[in-house]
Amino acid sequence: MTELAKIGVILLSGGLDSMVTAALAKEQGYRLHALTIDYGQRHVRELQSARAIADKLGVERHVSLPLDLRQFGKSALTDDIDVPKSGVGNDIPVTYVPARNLLFLALTTAFAESAGSSDIFIGVNALDYSGYPDCRPEFIASFAETARLGTKQGVEGSPFEIHAPLQHMTKAEIARECARLGLDASWSWSCYDPTADGLACGLCDSCRLRRKGLAEAGVVDSTRYAATPDRA
Amino acid sequence: MTELAKIGVILLSGGLDSMVTAALAKEQGYRLHALTIDYGQRHVRELQSARAIADKLGVERHVSLPLDLRQFGKSALTDDIDVPKSGVGNDIPVTYVPARNLLFLALTTAFAESAGSSDIFIGVNALDYSGYPDCRPEFIASFAETARLGTKQGVEGSPFEIHAPLQHMTKAEIARECARLGLDASWSWSCYDPTADGLACGLCDSCRLRRKGLAEAGVVDSTRYAATPDRA
Repeated sequence: MTELAKIGVILLSGGLDSMVTAALAKEQGYRLHALTIDYGQRHVRELQSARAIADKLGVERHVSLPLDLRQFGKSALTDDIDVPKSGVGNDIPVTYVPARNLLFLALTTAFAESAGSSDIFIGVNALDYSGYPDCRPEFIASFAETARLGTKQGVEGSPFEIHAPLQHMTKAEIARECARLGLDASWSWSCYDPTADGLACGLCDSCRLRRKGLAEAGVVDSTRYAATPDRA
Repeated sequence: MTELAKIGVILLSGGLDSMVTAALAKEQGYRLHALTIDYGQRHVRELQSARAIADKLGVERHVSLPLDLRQFGKSALTDDIDVPKSGVGNDIPVTYVPARNLLFLALTTAFAESAGSSDIFIGVNALDYSGYPDCRPEFIASFAETARLGTKQGVEGSPFEIHAPLQHMTKAEIARECARLGLDASWSWSCYDPTADGLACGLCDSCRLRRKGLAEAGVVDSTRYAATPDRA
């Protein structure tokens, strides 16, 4: 890693996908700057994982930015609404946070432009996911064009590239990347609704997708779960 | 204003343009919800004006959201960089805040989606402006498409409309709208760099554009300025 290496700016939630994305950026030779948003999520535990991952991966600059989305409301992740536990469905679930990735990508773009970087990394995934519209490739592509038009950096000829290396991977493929890159899955945190004593619930969409993916890939995860679903 | 009137969500900085935009939305019959971003701007005085304008216009819900962009840096509006005082130039000035309108529109979209509104109002203007890329019509149009693709509301068939009624007005035309709508210009605050005793500097781009526009329209502004430029 030389002084001449480019800066890659990672949206680092602390989950499995953003951890693998950050490690892929590092493998490609980027110097890592990471942004974590402390948005009033009920799984505030993921912020602790984001710090641990940043430390393990040698992130040069890690900003954990408070942004209280509880002031807007209307999501099970920020409000007093129950997190669904009955399995991954086909509709957009109540854990959807209004315009979250639009907002988080905009924040990451502002962070990247301030750092003089045009490489943004995000761990979105449109295969084994919860059906959030802001994980789809057409959204990511449209965002890149909007960021080009709306920034000094874009206008002056160095548009942002939005790297989404997990976009077309299954959760099992992501789990295999996790192992290949020498990452410990338990550094990351996925559960939306941790128990009072700090265990992953085991039943929310995010726990289900994580466990299924890691199991299919044969990857060990020492995360402790409070419950095991009857079916995935 | 009935219960059935639609909610219009306004990005309300506290400046002249956002005040006129909010009043135009009200004139069109919208119930007003307003979002003000407390981003560490040196002209924190504008937040006080945003509150006063919200009060005068009967805004139903006003959220003033803290978001500390000083953590990203690189703008004369948030950092210890001098605000230019020599007149409006042709280049993007150092008062440009990286990706500000991208970010603020994303926040407004999140706020609007939470409120169940699909009408977003922003006071951007691409004639008498400082050359910021994120005030241009092509950016606003691209943002609307990105927001459609990246939100539940957009995907489910009720995309956001970004209203930018001042887009093609001169500052003098905006000043005339201010008068026509019965607004007092001095409720709003434009100066980027207020003096220690709370006067508008009179010399920054924002003061110059404001004074020129109001003078051309013959509108009285009781705002007190510390200095008067030799030329606009």
